[in-house]
Amino acid sequence: MSKIKEQGMKYNLYSWSAQKKINPMVVSKAEGVYFWDEDGKKYYDMSSQLVNSNLGHGHKKLIQAIKDQAEKMAFMGPGYSVDVRSEAAQKIVELSGLEGAKVFFTNAGAEANENAIKMAKAYTGKWKIFSAYRSYHGATFGASMLTGEPRRFIAEPGVPGFIKYDGPYAYRAPKACNFKSEEDVTAFYLELLENQFLYEGPDQIAGIFFETVVGSNGILIPPKGYYEGVRALCDKYNIVMICDEVMAGFYRTGTAFAFHQFNVKPDLVTFAKGATCGYVPLGGVIVSEKIAKIFDEKKMYSGLTYSAHPMGCATTIATLDAYKEENIADNVAQQGKVLAEILDDFEKKHACVGQVRHIGLFSCVELVKSKETREPIVPFNNDAEGLMPKIVGMLKVEGFSTYSHENMILVAPPLNITETELRDAMKIMDKVLDSVDNMIK
Amino acid sequence: MSKIKEQGMKYNLYSWSAQKKINPMVVSKAEGVYFWDEDGKKYYDMSSQLVNSNLGHGHKKLIQAIKDQAEKMAFMGPGYSVDVRSEAAQKIVELSGLEGAKVFFTNAGAEANENAIKMAKAYTGKWKIFSAYRSYHGATFGASMLTGEPRRFIAEPGVPGFIKYDGPYAYRAPKACNFKSEEDVTAFYLELLENQFLYEGPDQIAGIFFETVVGSNGILIPPKGYYEGVRALCDKYNIVMICDEVMAGFYRTGTAFAFHQFNVKPDLVTFAKGATCGYVPLGGVIVSEKIAKIFDEKKMYSGLTYSAHPMGCATTIATLDAYKEENIADNVAQQGKVLAEILDDFEKKHACVGQVRHIGLFSCVELVKSKETREPIVPFNNDAEGLMPKIVGMLKVEGFSTYSHENMILVAPPLNITETELRDAMKIMDKVLDSVDNMIK
Repeated sequence: MSKIKEQGMKYNLYSWSAQKKINPMVVSKAEGVYFWDEDGKKYYDMSSQLVNSNLGHGHKKLIQAIKDQAEKMAFMGPGYSVDVRSEAAQKIVELSGLEGAKVFFTNAGAEANENAIKMAKAYTGKWKIFSAYRSYHGATFGASMLTGEPRRFIAEPGVPGFIKYDGPYAYRAPKACNFKSEEDVTAFYLELLENQFLYEGPDQIAGIFFETVVGSNGILIPPKGYYEGVRALCDKYNIVMICDEVMAGFYRTGTAFAFHQFNVKPDLVTFAKGATCGYVPLGGVIVSEKIAKIFDEKKMYSGLTYSAHPMGCATTIATLDAYKEENIADNVAQQGKVLAEILDDFEKKHACVGQVRHIGLFSCVELVKSKETREPIVPFNNDAEGLMPKIVGMLKVEGFSTYSHENMILVAPPLNITETELRDAMKIMDKVLDSVDNMIK
Repeated sequence: MSKIKEQGMKYNLYSWSAQKKINPMVVSKAEGVYFWDEDGKKYYDMSSQLVNSNLGHGHKKLIQAIKDQAEKMAFMGPGYSVDVRSEAAQKIVELSGLEGAKVFFTNAGAEANENAIKMAKAYTGKWKIFSAYRSYHGATFGASMLTGEPRRFIAEPGVPGFIKYDGPYAYRAPKACNFKSEEDVTAFYLELLENQFLYEGPDQIAGIFFETVVGSNGILIPPKGYYEGVRALCDKYNIVMICDEVMAGFYRTGTAFAFHQFNVKPDLVTFAKGATCGYVPLGGVIVSEKIAKIFDEKKMYSGLTYSAHPMGCATTIATLDAYKEENIADNVAQQGKVLAEILDDFEKKHACVGQVRHIGLFSCVELVKSKETREPIVPFNNDAEGLMPKIVGMLKVEGFSTYSHENMILVAPPLNITETELRDAMKIMDKVLDSVDNMIK
C-alpha cells in the first residue's frame, strides 16, 4: 500500500462506508474529463465526481480566480459587503431569471436546503414540509428529513412535520396504473399529490421540495405539465415551491437551471456543486422576491460563519463566466443528443437495461433482472451481495469512473466533454453491459 | 451608497438580520489584525471576524498553500485518497494528542456537530443528546437542536431527545447557591448534571456536548475539576463526551485544543474556524479510537460532497505549520497575560462591567446595570432598544471591531497580535466603557 493510502486509511474516515470494506484509490492527477491513479492509470470521470465537476479538472480560469482572490482577500465575515460577494449574488440571480430575487449563500447543498426549510416556514407561518421518497437532499438533520431514501433513517426519530410524497416515476408506478400517455402520468401524480395535501391539511403545509430532475435516485424527469400543475397547487394552497438544483443546476440538463425547461417559476431554488464546480465549497438559496421581501423587516434566522465566502464567490463568478464563454449550453445540447442516442441504443440491445433516462448530460441506466417484470437487478436498499459495486468496479477497471445508487448507474460527465471522449467512454459501458447481460441470463 | 454596497443590499441576504435594518460596511482591504472600509478607515479586528481569523488577514503562507493546491488539484471526491487529505487528517490527530483517533472532515462547524450527534448515537445505540442552555453549536437542524440559546427556536418543534442542561456559570447561578470556593461551583454543577442524567435515564443518553470554553454565549470557563467530573460521569453511564472546539480550538485558549487545559480526553472533538483560519471552509470531527473502531465493520452514515476538500486540507496543513513556526502558543500566553490584566482592570474600574472572563486570547466583558444586583445591561433575549448594537457601534466608530451577544462583548483578536496593537485597541474599549458607565448612572 502506498504511503498516502496507508496514511488515509489510518487517519481519515471515508463517507458512507464501513472503513475496512473500502479500498480508496489514490488519485494523483486530474485534468479535463480525466483523472489518474498513482500507478498512472487513467479514468474517464463519467460522474463529474459527485456531479459537481461541470467544467472538469484543472480549469485554468477557475484556478486563476482562486489564486487572485486568495491574494486579494481570502476571507471576510458574512456581515460585510465585499465586491465578489455582491457580484456573485447578482450573477446567480440574473442566471436564474427570477426578477427581484436575492441569494443567501451557504457552504454547500445540505445547508442550502436547511435554510430553504426555515424560509418556507417563516414566509407561510406554517410548519409541514413535503419532499419525495426517491430523493436525496443532504445529510444534516434538516436535509436528512427531506431526503426520502434510506440515508434518512440514521436521523430518525427526526423532526416532526416532514411528509413524503411519491414523485413521478412512471416506470415504477403501480402496475394497475397502466398509463396510456404522458398526460396520464402527469394527471395521476398530480391527483395523488393534491389528495395528500388535503389529507395533511393545506393550512399546515409550508413548502414542497423537488429535485427539479431527481439526481442520484435515478434521473427522474417530470412528465410534461407536472410542474405547471404543481405550481397551480402551490398557488392555490399558499405552499412554497422549492426546487433543489444542487445537481441539476448550472447547465447539467442543458439550461442554466433545470426549472427553465419546465415552464415554471419556483419560490426558492437551492444550489451548490456546479456553482463553483466544487473547486471551493459554495452553495446557496435563491430567494424569490415575494419571500425575500418579508426579510426586509422580519429577522431572517439564517446564518453561518462562511456564508458568502469570498473564495467561493470569486470562484462562482469565474465559473459562471466560463459557462458562457465556452458555450457550455450548446455543448450540452450537442453531446446530450449523442449520449441520448447511445443510451437509447443500450435500452434496446441490453437485456439488463430496463430503462435509460437522460436530459442534457444527466442520465442513468436502470438495471433489471428482466425487461418484462422490471424486477430491479438488486432489491431496494438490500444489495447484500454487493452486485452494483461489482458492476461499478468492472467499469472502473476499464477506465470508466462513476457511481451507482440502488439498481441504477449514473452517467453525468463534465459538461465540456467532446464527442470523441464521450463515445470512447460509452464504448466501455457498452462492453460492461454485455457482461451484465450474461450475469442475468 | 457605493456600487458594491448597493449591489449587495439588492442581491445578498445577510445572516441573522432584518435586511432593511442593517447597514453592511464595505470592506475593501484586510491585512494582519486590521481591515479597512472603502473610505480607507482602519479597524482592529478584535473578534478575528467570527473567531476564525486566528492568524489575521493576508497571511502569506496560507495564501501560497491555496494557490499551490488550486494548481495541483482543486477538487477530488471524498471517496478517494489524496495526499493533502491524508496529511491533514494525520496532523489534526497528532495535534489533538488522541492516539488512534481518525478525522471525518466537513465544510464547517455546524456539520461537524451534526455528524458528532450521529456518531454518538451509532456508538452507544442510545438516542438522547445533552447540550448546554448557554451554547451555540450551529444553525442546521441538528446543530440547532444542540444550540441552547434562542437561535434554536426557529428550528422548533425540533428533533426529539435533545435535552438542555445548565453548564457552569457561577456569576449567574441562583443566588441561594452562595458558593464559597471554586470547588463548590464544580460540585454544584456536577451534582445538577448527574441528577439530570438520572431523570432522563442514563441508558437513554448517547452523548453530551460542551463548548470546551463557551464562546459567543459568554466565554464561560469551566471551574477546576468540572471536566474530570464529567468524564467520570460519562464513563460511569457510557455517555459519549463531545467537545465542540469550533471556536476554542487551535490555540485560541493557549493550548492546541482547549480540552488540553482541563486534564480530560473527550470521545469526540468538533472543530472548524481556526483549522484554516477561514481562508477556505473546513471543519470536522476528531473521532477517538474506541468510536472510530466501530466504523471498521459498521457503515458510517456520514457523508458530504466536500468532505475533506483538497483546498481545505491543504490550507489546514499550512495553518497548522504556521501556528508552530510562529510560536503562536507562546504569543497567546504572553498577550493573553496582557489582555487579562487590562480586562481585570476594567472589571475593577468600570461601573458597567459586571465580570470579565478570559483564557488565552478568548475573552468577554459582561455588562450590567449594577455591579451589586448583577442585572444585565439588557434583558435576556430582549434588547428591544438595541443598546448592545449601539455600544458595539461606538467601538467601531473608534476603530475597534467586534460583536456582542446578549449583554456581553467579545474580545478575541488574531493570535499573532502584538502587545502594542493589543494595548492600543484596548485603550479604545476603555474609553467606550467610560461612556457606558455614564449611560447607566
